Amino acid sequence: MLNEGVIVALSTASNRAALHVIRLSGQGCFEMVDKVFVGRKISDIKSNALVYGKICSQNEDIDEVVLSVFKAPHSFTKEDVVEISCHGSPLISQKIIDIMIELGAKPALAGEFTQRAYLNGRFDLAQAEAVADLINAESEQARKIALSQLKGGVSNQIEMIREKLLEFLSLLELELDFGEEDVEFANREQLLERIDSAESYIVKLINSFGSGNAIKKGIPLVIAGKPNAGKSTLLNCLLNEERAIVSDIAGTTRDTIEESFMFNDLLFRLIDTAGIRHDAESVIEQMGIERTLQKIEKAEIVLYMVDAQHIDDSTDEIKAIEKYHDKIIWVLNKSDLLSSEKKIPENDWVRISAKKGEIESLLNRLKELCNTKYLSNDITISNTRHLSALKESLISIQKAKESLKQGLSGEIVVFELKSALEHLGSITGKITNDEVLGSIFSKFCIGK
Amino acid sequence: MLNEGVIVALSTASNRAALHVIRLSGQGCFEMVDKVFVGRKISDIKSNALVYGKICSQNEDIDEVVLSVFKAPHSFTKEDVVEISCHGSPLISQKIIDIMIELGAKPALAGEFTQRAYLNGRFDLAQAEAVADLINAESEQARKIALSQLKGGVSNQIEMIREKLLEFLSLLELELDFGEEDVEFANREQLLERIDSAESYIVKLINSFGSGNAIKKGIPLVIAGKPNAGKSTLLNCLLNEERAIVSDIAGTTRDTIEESFMFNDLLFRLIDTAGIRHDAESVIEQMGIERTLQKIEKAEIVLYMVDAQHIDDSTDEIKAIEKYHDKIIWVLNKSDLLSSEKKIPENDWVRISAKKGEIESLLNRLKELCNTKYLSNDITISNTRHLSALKESLISIQKAKESLKQGLSGEIVVFELKSALEHLGSITGKITNDEVLGSIFSKFCIGK
Repeated sequence: MLNEGVIVALSTASNRAALHVIRLSGQGCFEMVDKVFVGRKISDIKSNALVYGKICSQNEDIDEVVLSVFKAPHSFTKEDVVEISCHGSPLISQKIIDIMIELGAKPALAGEFTQRAYLNGRFDLAQAEAVADLINAESEQARKIALSQLKGGVSNQIEMIREKLLEFLSLLELELDFGEEDVEFANREQLLERIDSAESYIVKLINSFGSGNAIKKGIPLVIAGKPNAGKSTLLNCLLNEERAIVSDIAGTTRDTIEESFMFNDLLFRLIDTAGIRHDAESVIEQMGIERTLQKIEKAEIVLYMVDAQHIDDSTDEIKAIEKYHDKIIWVLNKSDLLSSEKKIPENDWVRISAKKGEIESLLNRLKELCNTKYLSNDITISNTRHLSALKESLISIQKAKESLKQGLSGEIVVFELKSALEHLGSITGKITNDEVLGSIFSKFCIGK
Repeated sequence: MLNEGVIVALSTASNRAALHVIRLSGQGCFEMVDKVFVGRKISDIKSNALVYGKICSQNEDIDEVVLSVFKAPHSFTKEDVVEISCHGSPLISQKIIDIMIELGAKPALAGEFTQRAYLNGRFDLAQAEAVADLINAESEQARKIALSQLKGGVSNQIEMIREKLLEFLSLLELELDFGEEDVEFANREQLLERIDSAESYIVKLINSFGSGNAIKKGIPLVIAGKPNAGKSTLLNCLLNEERAIVSDIAGTTRDTIEESFMFNDLLFRLIDTAGIRHDAESVIEQMGIERTLQKIEKAEIVLYMVDAQHIDDSTDEIKAIEKYHDKIIWVLNKSDLLSSEKKIPENDWVRISAKKGEIESLLNRLKELCNTKYLSNDITISNTRHLSALKESLISIQKAKESLKQGLSGEIVVFELKSALEHLGSITGKITNDEVLGSIFSKFCIGK
């Protein structure tokens, strides 16, 4: 009975500030607030109104407040909702919450408001998940992906694929109904085309996860190269230049990720920089090609750096990593010191001088690469739950296709299709269970 | 021209949360928001309404939001006000603020919304100051004092005194007008009564500052006594018992004050506990009577502790501090180990066993003492600015009284009275200047 009773929580951060907002949702919350609100009777007023007054409990004034009154279904949860905007003191908001709990409200669980919104049909499950993603977005691009998902971008794609499969399914089931007569309503060629199309959409969404997840979590970036190539200097250039922007998102990024920077509306997470930063002669600095390859594997983007004057030292390494060329930016450092006779192996080098802070050409290249890799307008999956559901449904679809090609019984095809549909349906929550819901909403913050 | 143009700021804490609220105030803020708000046109709707829609800038959706629309004068600042409630991401709220600044809003200075509310006559200066006190209140009692001040408690007292003096003044001035005729409209006896009454009100307010300030800042409490009296054990009892409550006010109390605890709706700041806590044999532990006296001077309340079995060691100290008896709670520790023969010097001892956590009797005594000292229903001054203004006005009043008694010229009395009135008027802001205002509001948080 998750959806019953009045729930209450602080919906703003609990630190001292100008305002705190306490949210109540559920049938009976108006009457509850009316018991301690001195002002107009909010049960009687119309929806979407603001009311000024004070909270008064046991003849004692607690605070002067403004109430936002949303009547069902014109609210976030589609239930009756009151938001109490009080002075931003942890003491005051906690006291008001305590009063509401005494009056019968339950402290809201993490994400419980959004869960109610979902259960009451305000949006589907993928959209509900986007609410948390939106709040947690650490870069502009992550925000855009989350907002697109909230507005139904992912859900519409999934529904479109489901519809394709459902049509297909209904044709097959019709055949099965007439099974004994051995008719074929559905042209096998057309069926295959239809299933191919669904498959290719799913594959496209699955493939979008790589970039979607990188955008959401921060793009893993490696600075590789021999000792003394200037990696630590470049690292400082990258971090200092954009640190101000990162620190604007106070207390978010920097608490969890040690080295990261924002560029081109994207967040980059630097992998394995401890060695670079703190000890130029450390093990990591002196690691062999094997270790470099491992680092590159983990990265989405690699800045591979050589000292222009000592480029010959890196010949073997360059050869070894060349197969990863589509994620590598080849960086020729100290290029200002390069004599014109020096032979540079052919490659798409960007020339910089990290020491002088001349890294413009590198940033331009990074921007180009990111624009190609990450900034598409296509619908992007960024949620691991969605990814696994899509993968499961892909397996079923491929089995269905194989069965169809081999002329196997329609029942087998139908079975696989239904399984594929179920997995797709779990993304938007058409098919779901309490356990899945619990796990999804527990990741939310309290008050949302 | 502080009061012109649209100002904007985040009014909730900037940490990630379910909600962030951005506040705009000033003529033109509706038109400004209308430019980027997709929903209803807010310039056209009536006041005190909530509107759902989205913020969209340069064809890009930023976030889905709810607007609270307050039309002048039905708002906190008495100006047109919009509050934008968006998803609680620092990235999103900063982006919306940036958009508003691009559209011409100015980032609000600390306290600028409250300053406008004051300048537009929503409340007087003492009430405006109470807004900051309310947000900063660290205990229930501090909240009550601030709320009482916000509701006009202090202001009404000041006005009442001012009126007494103004009547007095007008009588005197009338006399001066008829100066050449040497009439006395004002009965000198009655004048003196009147001025005595004003004086006693001011003295009462001045005297209330001690407790008001202690409540606001936390009541300075000292645990004193010989080494091994059990001070560190008692300290732990006090802190552990109430630590949970203190930590509810996350990130407030404990950041700034190292050792403090909440009891009886009051915050207590423990003075000089470092020695007690960390090193039983430290210098502080071994300090002499002189040092103990210094500590007691600084305290509002002293828990003076002796080991019941070694009470004789403390005889000198007890004698030396007895003059402070009205702030001392005499604590007899390890009283459970006391043999009945042991002679205890006569005093109002509370018997505890800190080791066993049996400190109930001490807490009861502390409560009694606090209820007497701090929990009066009288108007309490807690602001140093008010204190100095009251002291200044008291000086003038006393001079006026003296002049009156000595039968000096009415002009001298009038001069002093006017000076007293000016000082009183500065409390509520009837008489003020930009510098004072600037210093007051700069102590506010941004967004308030």
